[in-house]
Parts: sequence; structure tokens; C-alpha cells
Amino acid sequence: MAASRRRTSAEFQGDGSLMPPSAHVVASPRGGGAPSREEHANGGRPALRGANPRGGSSVFSATKLTGRRRPARRMPLRRVAIFASLALNVAALALLRHRYVVSHPHHPGVVSLDQQHHVCAPQPGTSGAAASAPSTGKPGVTSDSVINLDHGDPTMFEAFWRETGDAAELVIPGWQTMNYFSDVSNVCWFMEPDFDQQVRRLHRTVGNAAVDGCHVLVGTGSTQLLMAALYALSPADAVQPTSVVSTAPFYSWYPAVTDFLRSGLFRWAGDANSFVGDAYIELVCSPNNPDGAIRDALLGSGGAGKAVHDLAYYWPQYTPITRRADHDIMLFTMSKSTGHAGTRIGWALVKDREVARRMTKFVELNTVSVSKDSQLRAARVLRAVSDGYGGGASRHRLFDFGRRKMAERWRMLREAAAASGIFSLPEETSGRCNFANETAANNHAFAWLRCDREDVEDCAGFLRGHKILTRSGNQFGAEPRYVRVSMLGRDDAYDIFIRRLASLK
Amino acid sequence: MAASRRRTSAEFQGDGSLMPPSAHVVASPRGGGAPSREEHANGGRPALRGANPRGGSSVFSATKLTGRRRPARRMPLRRVAIFASLALNVAALALLRHRYVVSHPHHPGVVSLDQQHHVCAPQPGTSGAAASAPSTGKPGVTSDSVINLDHGDPTMFEAFWRETGDAAELVIPGWQTMNYFSDVSNVCWFMEPDFDQQVRRLHRTVGNAAVDGCHVLVGTGSTQLLMAALYALSPADAVQPTSVVSTAPFYSWYPAVTDFLRSGLFRWAGDANSFVGDAYIELVCSPNNPDGAIRDALLGSGGAGKAVHDLAYYWPQYTPITRRADHDIMLFTMSKSTGHAGTRIGWALVKDREVARRMTKFVELNTVSVSKDSQLRAARVLRAVSDGYGGGASRHRLFDFGRRKMAERWRMLREAAAASGIFSLPEETSGRCNFANETAANNHAFAWLRCDREDVEDCAGFLRGHKILTRSGNQFGAEPRYVRVSMLGRDDAYDIFIRRLASLK
Repeated sequence: MAASRRRTSAEFQGDGSLMPPSAHVVASPRGGGAPSREEHANGGRPALRGANPRGGSSVFSATKLTGRRRPARRMPLRRVAIFASLALNVAALALLRHRYVVSHPHHPGVVSLDQQHHVCAPQPGTSGAAASAPSTGKPGVTSDSVINLDHGDPTMFEAFWRETGDAAELVIPGWQTMNYFSDVSNVCWFMEPDFDQQVRRLHRTVGNAAVDGCHVLVGTGSTQLLMAALYALSPADAVQPTSVVSTAPFYSWYPAVTDFLRSGLFRWAGDANSFVGDAYIELVCSPNNPDGAIRDALLGSGGAGKAVHDLAYYWPQYTPITRRADHDIMLFTMSKSTGHAGTRIGWALVKDREVARRMTKFVELNTVSVSKDSQLRAARVLRAVSDGYGGGASRHRLFDFGRRKMAERWRMLREAAAASGIFSLPEETSGRCNFANETAANNHAFAWLRCDREDVEDCAGFLRGHKILTRSGNQFGAEPRYVRVSMLGRDDAYDIFIRRLASLK
Repeated sequence: MAASRRRTSAEFQGDGSLMPPSAHVVASPRGGGAPSREEHANGGRPALRGANPRGGSSVFSATKLTGRRRPARRMPLRRVAIFASLALNVAALALLRHRYVVSHPHHPGVVSLDQQHHVCAPQPGTSGAAASAPSTGKPGVTSDSVINLDHGDPTMFEAFWRETGDAAELVIPGWQTMNYFSDVSNVCWFMEPDFDQQVRRLHRTVGNAAVDGCHVLVGTGSTQLLMAALYALSPADAVQPTSVVSTAPFYSWYPAVTDFLRSGLFRWAGDANSFVGDAYIELVCSPNNPDGAIRDALLGSGGAGKAVHDLAYYWPQYTPITRRADHDIMLFTMSKSTGHAGTRIGWALVKDREVARRMTKFVELNTVSVSKDSQLRAARVLRAVSDGYGGGASRHRLFDFGRRKMAERWRMLREAAAASGIFSLPEETSGRCNFANETAANNHAFAWLRCDREDVEDCAGFLRGHKILTRSGNQFGAEPRYVRVSMLGRDDAYDIFIRRLASLK
């Protein structure tokens, strides 16, 4: 993946100084416009140096033919022009080829991604090679590999983005994005205006969230914004930490993110179903992680109770867009919408200005601001997504790709579970999708798989014994008979998982 | 700053289909290799269509001259080659010009940065223009402007990086850096190997830190890594939060970052000079923020006491490199080393593997990982810095630029303070710099300015009345007679500050 590269100044010269030895040069040593004697012998074509069939070279004055005289030593302008033109061609071809090779590192003759990754692996204390290839994440799998479907690493989307060519490519000069500030007139002063615009544009295009009248905030992933929301909604002067709840099965990270610093402002209080109290922050994830259920707040907002809506999966590839979500705080992430998890960009749509201000303050104290490079990257990617549905020339339709992919994978999974006979899955549900203008099924990013074999109480342990790594239901406030399986990985790993699952009895 | 751009497929064709109307085309309608009658009349040069002085066009058979025959209708290969060559030139020039314009948005004819910034300013609820220019930070200043030197926004370095051209440019294809993982064999599994290598290389080049045998960890700025260090060093099962101390004047953000979540793991306990106790985490900043003092730990490590060394300013532009720093935890940041504050990348050199593991866990729970795009950007920039001192072709020497700049600014400041007569500054100190192999002065990134006028107890308030914004000494655990002034801003703002300061009585 030699996308990071340096272009030397020589490549931009285009001044003919990159003439390779193979260029064909035609020039007369004596200049002049009239054909020489050799030229006449050659039917009027200029003589090639060293190719005089008569064994010599001379200039035949033009006066014999036309009576006009030209200085004998000047090279004809035409020949100079041909020379320069050919030189420029070669320089241009070299430049274009270099750019093509850099943009397409799989081009034969370029070091493969795996080779580059090995070169790049850090050796403690070594000076390091001049390698600059980005990492490729986890290594590939074989039929014997341990298949890790524990994380929601969205590598499935890579195939789509490879097809888009340079539609989502970003170039950042060395002198750009250096300062801290983006737009000091905005509540979120470190947010890049282009990112703000692309977020709004995408939501209007998809129709999955009411964005007008909302503040857009950017974060280093939606995980940071989740903590920012807890910080913003917890009274600073409260005697007790505010309780944070969510309906089981809830996302396994909610308790960890809430409690890892043992904050005096907020504290995890478990399943919303069993919560008693007036002051709380309810985390509502819909479609839900892990089981894909479509959810509303259980406790709701009102009085001292607040809700934060995590809509990471509310996109057409996973679920029909049945309405424009319209809540006080809505969180989204690049990781699950476009697959760009490594960019670490999430955003929040926030109605209340004071809440937006406090969330911004959290980010400021946590990481000062949010990487401008990442924001520009995200803006570029979001633009490419919207362009695909903008009625223009782009034919790259992310949600179409995603929907087909998820539908296929769920079909394979249901078949494998049926073939196995010891697993069950949530019921298939569907709805009217306003974005695609058709009925669409729910094909969640995760499969909430249950092992029905009586003697298997710990499904994650059972699957681990068959070299399939999943996340146990007990991390989600549910029974260990359940596991969460990522549906977003690469094809090779997913296919091996399906084959293995179908064979389990 | 139209660095973000899309290249259409047409630009890569280079097939001559981009021939503009102005291209000069030379072709004979009849082909053939022998000069036509017009060509003979023109002294053997090909006839321009429509430029026949004899009012007609014809092909003059070659048989009269040489006895050889050629097909009358085939265009001479030479002319086809000239035509194709010129077409390719034009296509290449168009492509190169497009790339130049995109990379250099100040090029005449391109929308200026200010215009782009206005276009990009978010209007609530608008659909937004197709603007994609990155922000430019704070607007420019005039002689009447409020000069804000409160923040350490390192815009001074922009001039250097503009001069490097594309040496630090980064290109990221749409399909890259998507997944979460970088190197699962590393303690810091989300760190890009190239970033790791460039950090090590730079430290070896500059000699400011012993990097061999250390784990390198990456963070979203060193602020995140500071919290990560507090998390890692605080016993999880302690009954009381661990005290966090630093010697006054200390960096104003240390108390805020430590306490904003009211963590049960660690708590700000103020000035190390007055601390009593066995368990503590001492934050040692050297050169110190705000006053530039060269510091060692006051309480030191040992028993239940730990030290974290914040070496953000330990670079040749600010201070002589007198020794290779060799502490248990050392923090650095792009913001102050290269000026790339907006990229949000910092790193830690950590000796103890378990501490490194817990710091990594903090980042994981806080933001899952660190933006790969930002890491690649930082690696590219660090590479360019090291290349400048690598004995190769690069002539871009960041630390030379920075040192000259800081020396000049401190000279101006001392003159202005002397001219004013009511301000004092820390004494000028110097030392032997092993990197530059010469004696060098301490020219800190901030000026610790004291107002000596008896009736001015609140220096920040006094300066604010003269439209100069600084940060009051009381935020650093010192008297309000002191202020911290950023020395890292743009030239225009700094010059206005100097003039105003010199005039104050």
C-alpha cells in the first residue's frame, strides 16, 4: 500500500531534462531549412547522423533551389520543436506512470502489501528501513486459522472503496492543517467546515436524521462523544454520580467506557429494565448492538432523566430507513457507516446549545481538539458517498453495495445455522425503507447467535474450541448462551466461519 | 487551500483527446513522403493548409527526383508522430497544471484562502456549497486587532513547511487506513509501524531521548497520553485517589486535565513544593511550561512515588540538547516539535511493559485507537525532518529554522521589554547543544512576562486593556503579576504585539 510517497522536484520539471536514451532524435548538425544533398538523396527527408549512404556529410546550399540563403549552423526550428516535444512526452509518461503505480500498489512490479507489512514490522531498537507503507490490519486467514469475529472491524467495506479509485482520495500538503483552530465562530471550534457540510448533506440525502436546527459536533470516534455526552448531561455539582443505564442486551463497552475512570460525575447502573430512580442517562442504541433490535428509549427523557441515542447502525445497509430520527443527542460513526474505522471520526447531532458547548469542552480537555487530517479524510469519504446518490456521474453507491453484501451474508448465516441445527438467530424482520423506496430486511452488523444445545451453556467457549472467536453474551448483560458475531469482516474469514458453523452439531 | 480534490478519469487518459483549439497542427491532406510542390516552393517545409501561395494544393510525385514511388495518400509518419507528440504534450501540460493549481491554491486565478474560508463557514441548515478547502485557523490581524497570545498555537512553523514543497505531502487513497488494527504483535496494537520507526529515527538523530529499549506509544496528542499515564500509574484498587503534583509554576492544564472527570483514581494535589505524602505522581515539564526553566523531578521516583516527564519543548529550536533524556515515561508532541498541532499526534517513550500496556488500554477505552491518517501524516512529517539532517539531498532543516526564529523573537521581546521599562523576563541562559555542536541559548516557546509596575497586580488584565490576550500567572499556580505569552504565532500578530508592548509605560 505505497500510497504515502514523495515526489521529487525533478518530476515536475518537464523541461526535457529527463530524456531517456531511447528517444529518437532527428537533427541536422548544420541547421538550415533547405534539404541537404543527402536529404535529396533520401527523397527530401532529413539525414540521420551517421547514416549518410554516400559516406560523408555536407550542407548543400539552398541557393541552387530557391535562391534564398539561410545561416548554415542553426538547427531548424522544426527539429528543435520535435526534440523538445518528444522530451516532454517522455517526462509526462514517466510522471503519469509513477502516479499510476503509487495509486495502484497492486500493479505488477510493486512490492505486495504483505511484503511491505513484513518490512514495516517494528524491530525493537533497529534503525528501521525507509518503509512508509500503512499497515494492513490483521493478517490473512487459512482454513486452519482462528477466525476472530469478536470485534466489529468493518473490513468488508474495503472492496467497495477500492472500486471507487481516487474518488475518495485525499492529498494533504505538508504545510496544511497545522493549527489548532477551525472555525472559532462555531460552538465546536475545532470542527472543519467541510466536514460539517458533508455530514448535513449525507443526512439529508439518506433521510435518517433530522439535521436542520442541530449543532454538529465532531469527535475522535463516537466513543469519545459518548463520554462527552455523559460529561455534558451530568450535573457538575451533584453529590452522587448520575446513573447511566441501558436496556439489556446492551453494548458491552457501555459499562467499561462509563466506569473505567471511576468518575464522580456518572456511574454505570446496569439494565434500564430494573432501574429505579429519577436521575439517569439512558443510552439507547438502535438498531441495537448486539441484537439488531429497533429500539426506543425505555425510561425516556423528562425531569432529571436524559437519553442519548446511539445510531451507529441506522444506515440503509443494515436496516430500512423508516423515519427521520429526531432526538436531543444522536451519535454516528464513520466506522459503521462507511467502514473507515481507522480514521477515528464520529459525530453528534445536538439540539441544545449548552449541551453542545459542554460536549465540546470535554473533547477539549480530553484531546484538545480532533485531528483535522481525519476530518478532511472523513469529509472526502462522505462526499463520495453522497455523490453516488446525487444524480451525477458517480456510479459508486455505498449503501447498495452494503445492503447486497449484508443480505447475502445473512442468507448464508441462516442457511448455516439451519444446516447445523444447534443454533438460533433473531427472527427476520423488515420494513418500508424510505431511502431505497422499497421493503427491506433488517440485516444487522452483528449476529446475536444463540446455542440451543442443552449441554452448552457457554457458547463463546464452545465456539472458541472450534477456533471461532466471538463475544460472550454475558458482556452484554445477557446469558452466556448468546454470542455476538461480527458480520463485517473480510470475505475469506467469513466464508471459513460459515463452513465451520454449518458443520457443528 | 484546495488540497482536497478529485481527479476525473479523463485526466489520466493522455490519449490526445484533450487537444485544445490552440494546438498547432501540421498535416498534409494527401500524405506521402515526398515534398509537395508547395513544400518545394517553401524551401522544403511542409505546406500549411490554406497557406498555399500558389492558390492550390497538389501532390508532386517523387518520381521526378529520385525515381522511387510512394503511395500518394498516406500521411508521412513523421507528421503523424509530430501530431501525436504535440497532442500528448498538451494533455500532459493540462494534467500538470491542474495538479499544480490544486497543490498551490495561492496560484493566481484560484479562489483565495479567505474567500474559501467564508464560503465554508457553516450556515445553520443550509445545504452548503461544494467547498472542500480546509480551514485556516484564526483570521489575519490588523494594527487594531486584539492580539491573542494566550494559546500556544504553533503557526510560526507554517512558513517553514510551505518551503518544503511536497517533501511532507501525504496521499491517502479512499480504501486505505480503514480497519482498526495496525500491528497486533505490538503492545500498542493501533500504532502504525512507520510512525514508530520515524519517532525512533528522529530521537536518534537529535539525541534528545534514549529511545532504544523503550516502548513507543502513540496518542491523540500528548494530552491524551498524559491522562493515560495517570491512569496507568494509579493503583486500580486504591482507597484514595493518587495525588498528582507539579512544581509551580506548572502548566495550567495539568489541574484541569487531572480533575475534570473527578476520577476516583487520581486527583490534583497542587504544588509539589508543598506536598506531603508517599504516594504521588509528579509531572515534570522540562523545559517548563510556562517559564522555560530546565527541571528535574523534585520528589523523584521511588516507593509509591512516580514521575512523568513532559518533554514537549525539549527540541533544539527552544533549548540546547545537553543530554539524552532517559526517564521511565517521556511525553512528546507534534504540536511543539514540528508545529502540526491540528494533526493531534503525540507519543510516549515508556520503559515498563506493564505501564505501556495500561496506557494503551486507556487509549482503547477513550477513543478505541488513534487515527491512522494522523499517524501516517505525522510519520511523513517526521521523516522530512530527519531527512533534513540525514546528509542527503534535503536542504529543509526544521531545527535551524526554528532556532533562528526563536532567537530573533526573543531578541525583539527583550528589546521591547527594555524599551517599555515596566516588564521583566527570565534571565537569558544557554548551554552546550550536542545536536548543533555549539553553545545555544534557551529561547522558550513561551515568555514568562512579569509586570513590575507597582499599581499593576493583574498583568493579564492590564494587557487585555491594551488588546493583548495572555494567560494569567494564577492559572499556573503563580502570582497574577506574571503572564504567559505565546512566542509561536504568526509574524504579523507577533510584530504588532512587540510594537504595542514597547509602547506601554
